Amino acid sequence: MATVSPTPLLKDELDIVIPTIRNLDFLEMWRPFFQPYHLIIVQDGDPSKVIKVPEGFDYELYNRNDINRILGPKASCISFKDSACRCFGYMVSKKKYIYTIDDDCFVAKDPSGKDINALEQHIKNLLCPSTPFFFNTLYDPYRDGADFVRGYPFSLREGVPTAVSHGLWLNIPDYDAPTQLVKPLERNTRYVDAIMSIPKGTLFPMCGMNLAFNRELIGPAMYFGLMGDGQPIGRYDDMWAGWCTKVICDHLGLGVKTGLPYIWHSKASNPFVNLKKEYKGIYWQEELIPFFQSVTLPKDCTTVQKCYIEISKQVKAKLGKVDDYFNKLADAMVTWIEAWDELNPSGAKSAELPNGAAK
Amino acid sequence: MATVSPTPLLKDELDIVIPTIRNLDFLEMWRPFFQPYHLIIVQDGDPSKVIKVPEGFDYELYNRNDINRILGPKASCISFKDSACRCFGYMVSKKKYIYTIDDDCFVAKDPSGKDINALEQHIKNLLCPSTPFFFNTLYDPYRDGADFVRGYPFSLREGVPTAVSHGLWLNIPDYDAPTQLVKPLERNTRYVDAIMSIPKGTLFPMCGMNLAFNRELIGPAMYFGLMGDGQPIGRYDDMWAGWCTKVICDHLGLGVKTGLPYIWHSKASNPFVNLKKEYKGIYWQEELIPFFQSVTLPKDCTTVQKCYIEISKQVKAKLGKVDDYFNKLADAMVTWIEAWDELNPSGAKSAELPNGAAK
Repeated sequence: MATVSPTPLLKDELDIVIPTIRNLDFLEMWRPFFQPYHLIIVQDGDPSKVIKVPEGFDYELYNRNDINRILGPKASCISFKDSACRCFGYMVSKKKYIYTIDDDCFVAKDPSGKDINALEQHIKNLLCPSTPFFFNTLYDPYRDGADFVRGYPFSLREGVPTAVSHGLWLNIPDYDAPTQLVKPLERNTRYVDAIMSIPKGTLFPMCGMNLAFNRELIGPAMYFGLMGDGQPIGRYDDMWAGWCTKVICDHLGLGVKTGLPYIWHSKASNPFVNLKKEYKGIYWQEELIPFFQSVTLPKDCTTVQKCYIEISKQVKAKLGKVDDYFNKLADAMVTWIEAWDELNPSGAKSAELPNGAAK
Repeated sequence: MATVSPTPLLKDELDIVIPTIRNLDFLEMWRPFFQPYHLIIVQDGDPSKVIKVPEGFDYELYNRNDINRILGPKASCISFKDSACRCFGYMVSKKKYIYTIDDDCFVAKDPSGKDINALEQHIKNLLCPSTPFFFNTLYDPYRDGADFVRGYPFSLREGVPTAVSHGLWLNIPDYDAPTQLVKPLERNTRYVDAIMSIPKGTLFPMCGMNLAFNRELIGPAMYFGLMGDGQPIGRYDDMWAGWCTKVICDHLGLGVKTGLPYIWHSKASNPFVNLKKEYKGIYWQEELIPFFQSVTLPKDCTTVQKCYIEISKQVKAKLGKVDDYFNKLADAMVTWIEAWDELNPSGAKSAELPNGAAK
């Protein structure tokens, strides 16, 4: 039996964004947790296909025609035939928080056998601070039964606002195609009861399968890039967003948490198809990581938008020579910000942080 | 019932270092795990007191008279009436690996109720690589059932040698005096089934209660400073060692792991006594952390000794003005290295890393 809090947290302040190509039967299992919330469904691929949503859910659905109609020529920045299109949902949302989940993700159980309310844990993660400047060996110091350990500077114990909560997956781990091919039978059975801040200056592979963020704090950085139809790569959408997001969070003094909650990832995607999508990315990421590790943002980049535009310039200047794709991507990054600001007219202003928040 | 591997790992390559002021009855509980190994006991305080060691253990014991006899005037760098004296044991050891444990630490149980062989887990941690350059969201990628996730650069998957394995504590957490005073009843009951690399560039509070390291790779950095009798602070011995060690590991391309194994920490030290020992440290650490975050070591610092001497110079130059204590400490750091090299004549040479290992 699922246990639900009597009053769902942030019921009117959070949208659940789901990219899909199929009927959303997977929502049945999530009903006790998701039904109080509003869903934004982004239909990936053929817009003439009808996606069935189980009864009783409050949702809006956008297909490619809707995206083209709403964004006009700027729709070019939204990927087609790839779950990267989900970021359109982040843009049209009017809420403060976003939770995004894949439609092959189900409710996992904790070691006691209890259903995990992933959304509730994400909200808790987002509502409590992060500690990116110094490592706490007992993990999240704000959890019940934990605290800062001896030697943790007191000046850093207030923490910083959490912008991102990155959840994990039991059963099918999020492996790349080569690892899937080498270890087809590997399943993640280890429930690690931890949440932690990813230290400042450290990049991580952000997976979009089970992810929540504060749209007001970091939304415009959550662009999932150009993937899928007509593009030379796939499966790097969330990675790209994660690298940009982490660099911007580090610059603006915001936190990124990873760990709990787990979802149950039911089926591995086809490793042969994935290999085709990924192979250029596997090669390019060897250039991308040093690039993102060396990005520095000037002091006058005080909003996410300004940071993002600055990164797009550096992408063009430094990655354009790796492949022309990055020139296209840099342009799309600018288009994305223009579209974001068009749909969120007060966004640029509200995202301005208090004086001195930027490093 | 304790389960022991038929052949203890690294039996002839590891010493267990224990600082103590009392009879070592706690070893009875560790007998199944520790008996095959050699113990180095460093007696803290009054050398005329006789420390009883349970039968059947292979050990050598050093009291203050021994330390003075062996080191002569250089004995000044070894703390008196403080468990910081344990680092003398690291110096006299002739083995490649050290495990150090406090005498109020007992065998913990894992969630299945099985006794945890902490030493065995530390050895596994030390024998497998670290991944400090990029965060792996499924934690230690080398553990059974885990791997590198999608988006982890392939060029970084070989990892780097692990120099330090930092284990944790169930029951009494390692809190500072103010936190002990505020939360006297807090107990750590959360078993987090993870081991992870502390990212490059991130400092952490290294606790000496349950700690293992590769003496050949990092030994000379494991100086526990000047604490206790005649010194203005205590309880910062392991922290100091940890900050120096982490900076040097980052420079030399070595890894630091934290997480498993847990020990059972039986009794909290007196928070009032601790407050007296700590209060200057609590104030000073606000200067120490920015100092260690900004330390850079020149390229020609290719051995731990050279790095350590360089840090001692920077301590004198930058922390001497915080308090004269840091001038004394900087001198003691130099004395420590001199004493280390005297007792380990080939050490300076063997610690030289292959060309290009330094950043």
